[in-house]
Amino acid sequence: MAKEHQDVIERICGEAREVYQRISKKQKPQMRLPLRALSNVKYKPDPGYFQLSGKSKVRTLTVGNRKTFAQTLKMLAMSKDLIHTKRHSTKREAYYQAYNWGQAAFAAQEESDTVMDDVEAMLATNREQLNFRADEHGGEVAGELVVIDKDRRTGKRLEIDCARFGSGAYSVPTVVEDLAFRTAAKFILAVETKGMFERLVEEDFYDKHHCILVSMGGVPSRACRRFIRRLADEKRLPVYVFTDGDPYGYFNIYRTLKVGSGNAAHLNEYFCVPQARYLGVTPDDITEYKLPTHPLKDVDRKRAMDAMKNDPFIKHHKPWQAAITKMLAMGVRVEQQALAKHGLEYVAREYLPRKLKQTDKFLP
Amino acid sequence: MAKEHQDVIERICGEAREVYQRISKKQKPQMRLPLRALSNVKYKPDPGYFQLSGKSKVRTLTVGNRKTFAQTLKMLAMSKDLIHTKRHSTKREAYYQAYNWGQAAFAAQEESDTVMDDVEAMLATNREQLNFRADEHGGEVAGELVVIDKDRRTGKRLEIDCARFGSGAYSVPTVVEDLAFRTAAKFILAVETKGMFERLVEEDFYDKHHCILVSMGGVPSRACRRFIRRLADEKRLPVYVFTDGDPYGYFNIYRTLKVGSGNAAHLNEYFCVPQARYLGVTPDDITEYKLPTHPLKDVDRKRAMDAMKNDPFIKHHKPWQAAITKMLAMGVRVEQQALAKHGLEYVAREYLPRKLKQTDKFLP
Repeated sequence: MAKEHQDVIERICGEAREVYQRISKKQKPQMRLPLRALSNVKYKPDPGYFQLSGKSKVRTLTVGNRKTFAQTLKMLAMSKDLIHTKRHSTKREAYYQAYNWGQAAFAAQEESDTVMDDVEAMLATNREQLNFRADEHGGEVAGELVVIDKDRRTGKRLEIDCARFGSGAYSVPTVVEDLAFRTAAKFILAVETKGMFERLVEEDFYDKHHCILVSMGGVPSRACRRFIRRLADEKRLPVYVFTDGDPYGYFNIYRTLKVGSGNAAHLNEYFCVPQARYLGVTPDDITEYKLPTHPLKDVDRKRAMDAMKNDPFIKHHKPWQAAITKMLAMGVRVEQQALAKHGLEYVAREYLPRKLKQTDKFLP
Repeated sequence: MAKEHQDVIERICGEAREVYQRISKKQKPQMRLPLRALSNVKYKPDPGYFQLSGKSKVRTLTVGNRKTFAQTLKMLAMSKDLIHTKRHSTKREAYYQAYNWGQAAFAAQEESDTVMDDVEAMLATNREQLNFRADEHGGEVAGELVVIDKDRRTGKRLEIDCARFGSGAYSVPTVVEDLAFRTAAKFILAVETKGMFERLVEEDFYDKHHCILVSMGGVPSRACRRFIRRLADEKRLPVYVFTDGDPYGYFNIYRTLKVGSGNAAHLNEYFCVPQARYLGVTPDDITEYKLPTHPLKDVDRKRAMDAMKNDPFIKHHKPWQAAITKMLAMGVRVEQQALAKHGLEYVAREYLPRKLKQTDKFLP
């Protein structure tokens, strides 16, 4: 068994032992959980993601919480079983498996999701390490990267060459904890849309610039963020992000990828990508590249003002404040495909190469 | 150039020639387009998809339609260029490329999308064959299949073995027209969720049952449907569909995959999968496998009643009417993950193998 798995099993058994010992001594069993709320979150540029401030609550067994208490222990046991049988369970499957827990069965999936969040926070880990997984798209990859996985049937090492998918791509699984990587690439380029991803594949971009292309498909899923993070950490690669130039691209996609989100602060440690830098499309690009734009919608304007006022990440970074202020003054947003005005190949032959010569000018 | 591409180029040039000849004779140029509306749709079990009835309209150049007329001709020229340069353009990119058409530029992307639909219908083809593509997820594949693509750089044949991706998968590109296949699989199993797809991969299902797994990720995209259709046609494989047992799974996913949809009738010929059969989860399964259920929502009930009354596909197939009637009488829906109540491996070891012994009992 891998070291990480042994470590998780050890933590699960540790929790169980404490509960057992208190019961043996005729004391009420208890569990300690970090407080998961925005009021318990802090932001510092280093390490670069939202963190829990350390407040925690102790859950002692009472008549009122006996069901949740039992469910939490059963969920820990389920995780231990999963790791031993080398299986993963989606949140939905976990909910249905718990149908057989008698009085401790969940009334609805929201209940089991909450208990799973508790277990994650309690063990200071992410649910993927507990062999739970989300039912979501993990993003797509093409470029100078060999992903090293295992053949489940033989246990043999499996090398997946992401430069040999033709017009297709490697689809990232929902759990990436056990993947390893081999690459000589110089950077990772994470793009918002599958359309732009396929454009760059078609233009042989990753060949010419020795990089790894990742299609996030909108707001990156946990799996996609974790994949980029692990790859960037292990191979010491810079990560450049290429989205539409609008509040959705800036905050929902880029900010989430880089520093995480407020309401999942206990997880940002695993899922943020602090090395990410914003390549474009910026408000400055609109004038520099004479790009067609669309007027900002009310919702865009509102989101931008709100971020200027309340988002600790934006408040910390002056260049971002300048960019948002410029966007609001211009009153327009710009799509990454707008570069096609200058021809389909322009983005790969002109725009990106020019940008990549001045990576220090990327937004933080 | 491939034969299909030559054929499309020939049709584009044919249209252009007609317009040119009429102008040379000082006649007003015109184009003939099939009427794209539900009133021009018919359904027959053979060939098994919604078809256009043949009504068409002639668009003659007038002062009022001069812009649309010009845009349609420019769009035909763009397609010809794309085929010659071996590039593909998303709908969004096409809209931006048209920024340089002077007075014929589009005011909004909806306009250019409509002209693209016109061009598709006029040439009796699908936009993928015109080298246009949607910006959408194409589905994921794992199993006993080798996809044959080309290396864009060398032009050499590329073999992609979908049984060698470990926990990952092959991500289907948005344009699949030029892919070829090699397989000894016995059937294709198309599943609704990525969660169930990964479950079956983890249980070695495709090895044990010699099949190809496709994750549709909800309602299958055009690329996903076209991929399944081409693979099933060329390799003469049956297609079994495994979704949640609710109106969304029955109609939005299964019915769309099998016969297409009413408002895109000129395309169903390419995107439907008439050989698809519905494996489950059915209302009968709820009692037979003692599955946990959820009450039907009002929107479920409404959609089901509407389909019984108005959907020509459901009206044609008695077994479907019986299933829907049973669902409405029971008042419940069931998720495919509900089988996890009997253990994570149950779906792969018990449910599917039992079902696959009686494929004649699948819903049509």
